[in-house]
Amino acid sequence: MNIPIFETKERVLADNDAAAETTRRRMRENKTVLVNLMGSPGAGKTSVLLRLLALLGETYRVGVMEADVDSDVDAKTVAAAGAKTVQLHTAGLCHMDADMTSRGLDALDIDGLDLVFLENVGNLVCPAEFEVGADLRMMILSVPEGDDKPLKYPLMFQISDVLLVNKTDTRPVFDFDLDKMTDRVKALNENVRIFPVSAKENEGFAPVAALLESMIRERRGEVCV
Amino acid sequence: MNIPIFETKERVLADNDAAAETTRRRMRENKTVLVNLMGSPGAGKTSVLLRLLALLGETYRVGVMEADVDSDVDAKTVAAAGAKTVQLHTAGLCHMDADMTSRGLDALDIDGLDLVFLENVGNLVCPAEFEVGADLRMMILSVPEGDDKPLKYPLMFQISDVLLVNKTDTRPVFDFDLDKMTDRVKALNENVRIFPVSAKENEGFAPVAALLESMIRERRGEVCV
Repeated sequence: MNIPIFETKERVLADNDAAAETTRRRMRENKTVLVNLMGSPGAGKTSVLLRLLALLGETYRVGVMEADVDSDVDAKTVAAAGAKTVQLHTAGLCHMDADMTSRGLDALDIDGLDLVFLENVGNLVCPAEFEVGADLRMMILSVPEGDDKPLKYPLMFQISDVLLVNKTDTRPVFDFDLDKMTDRVKALNENVRIFPVSAKENEGFAPVAALLESMIRERRGEVCV
Repeated sequence: MNIPIFETKERVLADNDAAAETTRRRMRENKTVLVNLMGSPGAGKTSVLLRLLALLGETYRVGVMEADVDSDVDAKTVAAAGAKTVQLHTAGLCHMDADMTSRGLDALDIDGLDLVFLENVGNLVCPAEFEVGADLRMMILSVPEGDDKPLKYPLMFQISDVLLVNKTDTRPVFDFDLDKMTDRVKALNENVRIFPVSAKENEGFAPVAALLESMIRERRGEVCV
């Protein structure tokens, strides 16, 4: 007897990709850049966000969607920094998907916003599988997590456009080989752009802000590519 | 029109709980203690395991199941330390469930083993939802991740029997308030036992090993409780 097999996961991912494509179109029409910020718990997603908000928030209108399993600690911090913020609760889910992101954009009301950050759930596995329709996938790896992480969570490194290596101020304390990590990441994804930063010391963010600024200006039609 | 609703997640979790109960029974019959080791990527799960293996491996027969999305770097390290080891690939899944764990125990062949560690996928969300049938749920939080993690990933702290706070050697570098973290964890789970450790400096593991030893001896029927 042949029992029909339904590939649940493939179907879910295909539906998700279609929803992500809709969001991508929406962002283009709205002239807004969407950044999907991902990383482990404690990698420094919120601290990095605060540094980028300080650099971009005076010139551009920036919104933030804070995704959390529970709690609103990060949303409060980000809102206090002056960004238009919504808190999204995933109710136990380990990632944001495209549909949840789209509802988040509704809740945030992106009309007039130049740039929106989605701070994804702290996790190196599930968010890598679910496109949300972002223009830029920005991953944060922090020095204390170790230089072997590309070997263990390859998909996240593969799908990221930009990798921020955070907490570089702690390099004297940890056995973290930046060159080795870079080789491991490049073997998975030769196009990824890597920026060492320290949110604590506020170092290394100017080129990251410049990249985001160029994306905002391009989307507004202010520059010819 | 009333459309019937099928609570997929509840059903999956109920099936999983039943499978976990079967494993729990199997471990009792086999006189083996199963520990589910969980934590973020880079929290130090493998390093902690190596320290515990050094303390327990000469007296007891210890097995290790290394769960990874991909790769076998940790399994190689652990096997080199002399433990009976199997590598389990979750093929993209963000956690081990009870069924996968049961198959892992088959592959490991637990006959004659006193203690088995499951090193779960590095993740603070999904592994907290899926019981595997362990006798002890041991979570590792590392100092660089921050003292706010109980607020953001409450379920993981709620379901853990033991919390190891690792990388205490880096406390001078990070703004980590151990008392504040302890209060936050105890508010979620007043019975959790907290052990500050440093895998790098090999500090704090004696009481953790003693706890595991008491569980092994109790299971063997060597002590009356």
